[in-house]
Amino acid sequence: MAISLRKARTIMRKTFEKGREMELKPLSVVVLDAGGHVQAFEREDGAAPGRFAIAHGKAYGAVMLGMAGSAQMARAEQQAYFMAAVNGVYGGQVIPVPGGVLLRDKKGAVIGAVGVTGDTSDNDAVAALAGIEAAGLIGEA
Amino acid sequence: MAISLRKARTIMRKTFEKGREMELKPLSVVVLDAGGHVQAFEREDGAAPGRFAIAHGKAYGAVMLGMAGSAQMARAEQQAYFMAAVNGVYGGQVIPVPGGVLLRDKKGAVIGAVGVTGDTSDNDAVAALAGIEAAGLIGEA
Amino acid sequence: MAISLRKARTIMRKTFEKGREMELKPLSVVVLDAGGHVQAFEREDGAAPGRFAIAHGKAYGAVMLGMAGSAQMARAEQQAYFMAAVNGVYGGQVIPVPGGVLLRDKKGAVIGAVGVTGDTSDNDAVAALAGIEAAGLIGEA
Amino acid sequence: MAISLRKARTIMRKTFEKGREMELKPLSVVVLDAGGHVQAFEREDGAAPGRFAIAHGKAYGAVMLGMAGSAQMARAEQQAYFMAAVNGVYGGQVIPVPGGVLLRDKKGAVIGAVGVTGDTSDNDAVAALAGIEAAGLIGEA
Repeated sequence: MAISLRKARTIMRKTFEKGREMELKPLSVVVLDAGGHVQAFEREDGAAPGRFAIAHGKAYGAVMLGMAGSAQMARAEQQAYFMAAVNGVYGGQVIPVPGGVLLRDKKGAVIGAVGVTGDTSDNDAVAALAGIEAAGLIGEA
Repeated sequence: MAISLRKARTIMRKTFEKGREMELKPLSVVVLDAGGHVQAFEREDGAAPGRFAIAHGKAYGAVMLGMAGSAQMARAEQQAYFMAAVNGVYGGQVIPVPGGVLLRDKKGAVIGAVGVTGDTSDNDAVAALAGIEAAGLIGEA
Repeated sequence: MAISLRKARTIMRKTFEKGREMELKPLSVVVLDAGGHVQAFEREDGAAPGRFAIAHGKAYGAVMLGMAGSAQMARAEQQAYFMAAVNGVYGGQVIPVPGGVLLRDKKGAVIGAVGVTGDTSDNDAVAALAGIEAAGLIGEA
Repeated sequence: MAISLRKARTIMRKTFEKGREMELKPLSVVVLDAGGHVQAFEREDGAAPGRFAIAHGKAYGAVMLGMAGSAQMARAEQQAYFMAAVNGVYGGQVIPVPGGVLLRDKKGAVIGAVGVTGDTSDNDAVAALAGIEAAGLIGEA
């Protein structure tokens, strides 16, 4: 099961809606496929210019390791040099904090990931989960 | 004048509509701001996984050099080593062919760029220009 | 609102004047635009040769993240691996300490950043703010 | 003999004056010291955002190889793979075309380089030479 562009759009829109409801700062959302490749991205007006790379880094690490952002953060706090080394092998593309959310199908297989950035990492993850749920998918933050 | 997310969405949708009307292969479209940073990206279902980097490379070179894709291609054909060297200083991020389209405001200032990939470079550029026109902006392919 | 070269020159000159008034070591000052691209740079006689990269790194992180140097430093002190990872996605170009000062317009939008290096980080920031104020802009250190 | 910041400012101003006199497109000018390190840079209003890297690449290759831009171009045209390999060892930072001008003292020693970009490579070099002459230095384009 792939993430269709239609589903990706729903995830992005609903994540932004949740952000506005929670009165978060402007958000940026990326949707990656099961190979860690960009399906779609949107940056809300007013967000800082460099947000693509942060959103991407949260989602990319999730797909590549099969670990959501909070699990990556736990590992980074226990063993910072391990996550630094992981970043070495992945070309420095991993941001190991909440806001990187795995997308799973009903059998539990990873079909992609969503990366959200703009507010606190925890708020980013809450908004991502709302967007994913609205698209009828299962998120693991 | 910035490219709002609303305008970026219009550009992407209308580029895809043009692609379907012309019966092109699945397209991918990126919209960059005046600093070359990603505002929005979408990849149609069925497009190859690596299309983000190609779309980005077409638009990025256009913004950074202030030269549309066809002008970059002409330079690359005259002086290949120059465009290769340019790519070196920009971290290998430039794809110097049509489909990288400058966005200009009414005074002629560059306000961003659109990158389209998926079909032939020339068809990519035609679709991009249709999307840009539909958004009420001026494109230079 | 863009930072004109005229304004950038004023920022650099007035930062140097403040540095001389405070009897600081030789300073280097970079002015970046809203996309993080170099508008102007000057290195005072006697400054170390590698100062461009340090000044640039302070200002670049500020623009890309929309966070001034002191906020970046606070984050680095709380969560060192996060700022290390951010540096990975930005190609190792971020120096997260004071002396990276955001430039805002009257509505609060980020229009660029100034990076100063040469003395202590805190003194660098004081000099930068003096230069920014002299140019009639609003700085956030 | 070092290039003082005062001299660097003169070079930049006079290069821009020459550009305006010749009705060239907006120019960008970098001045590097004898170690290839940035002393000063200015980008005229209206120049494309990525011009720092191009100006720098022209001047950097000149200093590092002790060869002006036109000599580098001649070598690139005779032996493209050689200049590509040179770029490999210099981290992709060399742009081997006119507009990279060596600065020499009266005994002929290289004391730095100027890089100019914005118009045709040949016009860039003419403007650079005018700026260098106005500063009382000897340029080799």
